[in-house]
Amino acid sequence: MTVREHDMPKDRTKAGVAAAIDHSVLKATATERQVRDCCAEALSNGFAAVCVNPHWVPLCAAELAGTGVTVCAVVGFPLGANASPVKAEEARLAVAQGARELDMVINVGAAKSGRWDEVEADIRAVVEAAGTAVVKAIIEACYLTDGEKVKACEAAERAGAGFVMTSTGFGTGGASAEDVRLIRATVGDRLKVKASGGIRSPHDALRMLEAGADRLGASGGVAIVAELAGKAGGGE
Amino acid sequence: MTVREHDMPKDRTKAGVAAAIDHSVLKATATERQVRDCCAEALSNGFAAVCVNPHWVPLCAAELAGTGVTVCAVVGFPLGANASPVKAEEARLAVAQGARELDMVINVGAAKSGRWDEVEADIRAVVEAAGTAVVKAIIEACYLTDGEKVKACEAAERAGAGFVMTSTGFGTGGASAEDVRLIRATVGDRLKVKASGGIRSPHDALRMLEAGADRLGASGGVAIVAELAGKAGGGE
Repeated sequence: MTVREHDMPKDRTKAGVAAAIDHSVLKATATERQVRDCCAEALSNGFAAVCVNPHWVPLCAAELAGTGVTVCAVVGFPLGANASPVKAEEARLAVAQGARELDMVINVGAAKSGRWDEVEADIRAVVEAAGTAVVKAIIEACYLTDGEKVKACEAAERAGAGFVMTSTGFGTGGASAEDVRLIRATVGDRLKVKASGGIRSPHDALRMLEAGADRLGASGGVAIVAELAGKAGGGE
Repeated sequence: MTVREHDMPKDRTKAGVAAAIDHSVLKATATERQVRDCCAEALSNGFAAVCVNPHWVPLCAAELAGTGVTVCAVVGFPLGANASPVKAEEARLAVAQGARELDMVINVGAAKSGRWDEVEADIRAVVEAAGTAVVKAIIEACYLTDGEKVKACEAAERAGAGFVMTSTGFGTGGASAEDVRLIRATVGDRLKVKASGGIRSPHDALRMLEAGADRLGASGGVAIVAELAGKAGGGE
C-alpha cells in the first residue's frame, strides 16, 4: 500500500475538497453569532462538519439538525492535560447533545514522559464514552519526535480511534505534508487521517490531500473553496 | 479605598514576593519530571502554590503533602468554552485529588455575546463544585473591552469567586498594570486579584503588586526571585 493508492480516488473538485473540510470555529472569543454563521457557511459550502468548543454543541446541533453536516466537538482541547474521566465526561455530554465526531487531544505530557500505556488509556476512555461517535485523536505533532508520532498513532489505533489528526492549531506548529505521510504510513487504511492547523489556501488543502489526508480542519474553508473554484481545473 | 491603600501593606522583600507567586507549569508538553521539579522549586523558594493542568494534580498533591505550598489546578483551560457541567466535574475531581485552588477560565465567548447571566452561572457551577477550595476566575482580559472586564469582575463576585485573575498566558496578551488597577477598582477588597501572563522579571512582578495584585502567576518565578535578591533593597 502506497500513498499514491490513497490519494488516487480522492475528489479534487471544489465539491470534493469542500466535502473533506471540517469548518472550525475554536477561538475562545467565538460568539453565538459567529457560530451560527459558521453553521450556515458549512451548509452552503457542503463542508463535512462544523467543529466547535463543547459549549456550542447544542447550538450547532439545532442549526444543523436534519442536514448532512456533522457536529464535531473538541475534547480536552487544546492542551490535552485534563484528567481522563473529565475528558470522557466531556465526550459523553457532547455526544448526548448532538455531536457525532469528537476531536480529542491526546495527553501530550504523558507522551513526552514516555507513558504510552497512559496515552492509550486516555484515548480509550474517550472512545468508550463516545459510543457510536467517531473519535479523532489529535497527536499535536509539533511537539513530538517522529518516533513519538508513530507511537502516538499506534496508541490511537489500539484505543479504537477512527482518525489520527495532526494538530490543534493552538500549538507551535500546524499540519505538515511530512507528518500526514508519516501518520498515513503508520495507520495504513485502518484509520483515517485529518490534517489541521495552518491550512489556509487551496495549495495547502491540496497538498494535505495529496499527502494522504482524508479530512482537513480549517477556519478559512470558505475562502479556500472560493479560490479553488477560480483556479483552472479546480471548478465543479 | 484607593489602590495605594491596597499595596501599602505588601511585603516587597524577596520572601514577600515569592510568597505571592503561583509557580505555573501549564504547557501541553510538561513532563512528570518537569512537574516534580516545579514542586521542588516551589518548596525551596517559598512560593504560594504550584499551578498545573488537572492530569498532574495527584502527583503534585503527593509531592506537596504536608508542606505550606498549595496545589492549584486549572479548569476549562485555556479557552473556557467547555460545557459548565464538565468544568464543574473537572473542579470537583481536582479538589478530590488534592487541589485547594482552582484557576478557571470564564466563558469568554458567552461574555463576547453579552450573555452575562451565562458567564455568572458558569463560574457559579465551578464555585459550587469546588467546595472549600478557592476559585480564581480568569477573565482573559486581552479579549475584553474595559466595560466587559468590569462586567466579568461583577459576574465573578456574584458567583462567589475568591479572586479575579487577568489572563491564561495562552491568549494574545498577558497581565497589564492597567487591567490590574481596573480589576482592583471593581472588586475593592472583597475579592483578591491575580496577575498572570507575561510576568518574567522582578520589574514586572513589582509593577503588578504595586498596581494591586495579591498573587502573581508565572512560570519563571525562580529567576524572578533570584534576580530580586540581587537588587539593592530587594534582599531579605
